[in-house]
Amino acid sequence: MSKYCFGVDVGGTTIKMGLFTVEGDLLEKWEIPTRTEDQGSHIFDDIADAIKKKIADKSLSKEDILGIGVGVPGPVDVNGTVFQAVNLGWGNVNLPKELSERTGLPVKAGNDANVAALGEQWKGGGQGYDDMVLVTLGTGVGGGIIVNGKMLVGAGGAGGEIGHIHMNDEETEACGCGNFGCLEQYASATGIVRLAKEKLESTDTESILRSQPLSAKSTWDAVKAGDALAKEVAEEFGFYLGKGLATIADICNPEIFVIGGGVSKAGDILIPYVQKYYKKYVFHASASAIFTLAVLENDAGIYGAAKLLLE
Amino acid sequence: MSKYCFGVDVGGTTIKMGLFTVEGDLLEKWEIPTRTEDQGSHIFDDIADAIKKKIADKSLSKEDILGIGVGVPGPVDVNGTVFQAVNLGWGNVNLPKELSERTGLPVKAGNDANVAALGEQWKGGGQGYDDMVLVTLGTGVGGGIIVNGKMLVGAGGAGGEIGHIHMNDEETEACGCGNFGCLEQYASATGIVRLAKEKLESTDTESILRSQPLSAKSTWDAVKAGDALAKEVAEEFGFYLGKGLATIADICNPEIFVIGGGVSKAGDILIPYVQKYYKKYVFHASASAIFTLAVLENDAGIYGAAKLLLE
Repeated sequence: MSKYCFGVDVGGTTIKMGLFTVEGDLLEKWEIPTRTEDQGSHIFDDIADAIKKKIADKSLSKEDILGIGVGVPGPVDVNGTVFQAVNLGWGNVNLPKELSERTGLPVKAGNDANVAALGEQWKGGGQGYDDMVLVTLGTGVGGGIIVNGKMLVGAGGAGGEIGHIHMNDEETEACGCGNFGCLEQYASATGIVRLAKEKLESTDTESILRSQPLSAKSTWDAVKAGDALAKEVAEEFGFYLGKGLATIADICNPEIFVIGGGVSKAGDILIPYVQKYYKKYVFHASASAIFTLAVLENDAGIYGAAKLLLE
Repeated sequence: MSKYCFGVDVGGTTIKMGLFTVEGDLLEKWEIPTRTEDQGSHIFDDIADAIKKKIADKSLSKEDILGIGVGVPGPVDVNGTVFQAVNLGWGNVNLPKELSERTGLPVKAGNDANVAALGEQWKGGGQGYDDMVLVTLGTGVGGGIIVNGKMLVGAGGAGGEIGHIHMNDEETEACGCGNFGCLEQYASATGIVRLAKEKLESTDTESILRSQPLSAKSTWDAVKAGDALAKEVAEEFGFYLGKGLATIADICNPEIFVIGGGVSKAGDILIPYVQKYYKKYVFHASASAIFTLAVLENDAGIYGAAKLLLE
């Protein structure tokens, strides 16, 4: 019986790798650089070589290894086919085939945000819950949805793209995607800074935020210090995110929302701001959903990738 | 090998039943009344008796029968436990256990709207698509979401409750659920009548609708006749439904939307009104989703219930 599996999280600059037991214990983790030159064609060899080297170094037998799971920054369908991971230089790629041929091991692949959700559900903030939503508040807003223990992948691998839910008909500034009023324009780190800037420009209210460089972190620090203007920003953030998550709940009826990404480093303080509007807008069937913070941080991807093998 | 299965669709007044081949051919269908007295406790016996009688009448052998699938008007979890189907008088019920004990056959159960979606995906408008959303526009707005060929059930069986997605912060009239601005306040038959009434009261524009009883049907008939005011109502209906379905697509990335329910009898004319706003608000990854009409009408439930056995 197989005892180990590899979890691989391919990013635009580094590839994170982990050797796990099939029970989910992370035995070792390491990184290699992502070589995006030549349409990212070296990435397959680089991952395969790193894994073969680890197998040799550890004197593992191939029979002991269940396979390799991989998270990729781009849409990936249920069969592991990647559609244009632009940050890697890839066109359409049959990743399981490419990596299997090079390693002789079974390979599964998924979108990195969806895979991270699977990781948080397996060994992180969502442990024990079969129906979970991971919300990643970073430069943008990403998401991964777990339905009955499995990733919601979608027809084209774009399931869980919650950052682009339309939230505001009045928005005049365009989102990176070209639409106007997407969730990530209000709930990402960038979005919070934008809300804070607008608030600072539209009033004369005294605020700590006037005397320091504006960031999502400085905004939440000001909230913690009791700054009234920063609290108004947090309220607006909570309005959009809470309302957005209520919509997701009406559709997917999860037991738990796990909030991760850089913004979540603010800690538990952000949860009541989100929950207040969540409860206002959600259909009663999902009103009791739990809100918690992610715990695996940058390792969620390798955990989830390893878990792909166990599905 | 089993050759047949039963599909049962339990409604508040009648129970629809169908005998299917496992390939999905409907051999026979019939109805029995729903006896809701005594907390709906007779329903189990009534279904079991009807099935046992059909087996005897057709001289079928139990070995030939894969089982019984049942759709229920209320939340049903992945194990088939029903949570308070109020229209039937039920509290929490382990439906597979109740019916299996009475028939000696395997039993699976699901929420009626989710089961209808499975039916349309199996043999109706969504045939051939693994990622599908059924939108039922009736007195309310219901929905069922199929992800990778399976129903999105949700933690408490409330997956796909799309009628209560919050759409409008300015709404002053309450929805039946107690919230304000739910999708079904604009996109159901009742919602269309409400929109038409508001439009008629707020302008003096000539309209066919002023001289006849107002209904969703008369509104769409007026649209077909080129009535300008009715077209404005259709536009508003399309704005809310298109925007709502765009949100569902951002979350679930389906290949196809199947529109059913009484309102869909208006025909293909309603699709462009919905698609216009869908395309405006959706994230590009789901922009090419297909829109079509449901085809199984009232039989979608028995088809989907039978399909539950084959999952």
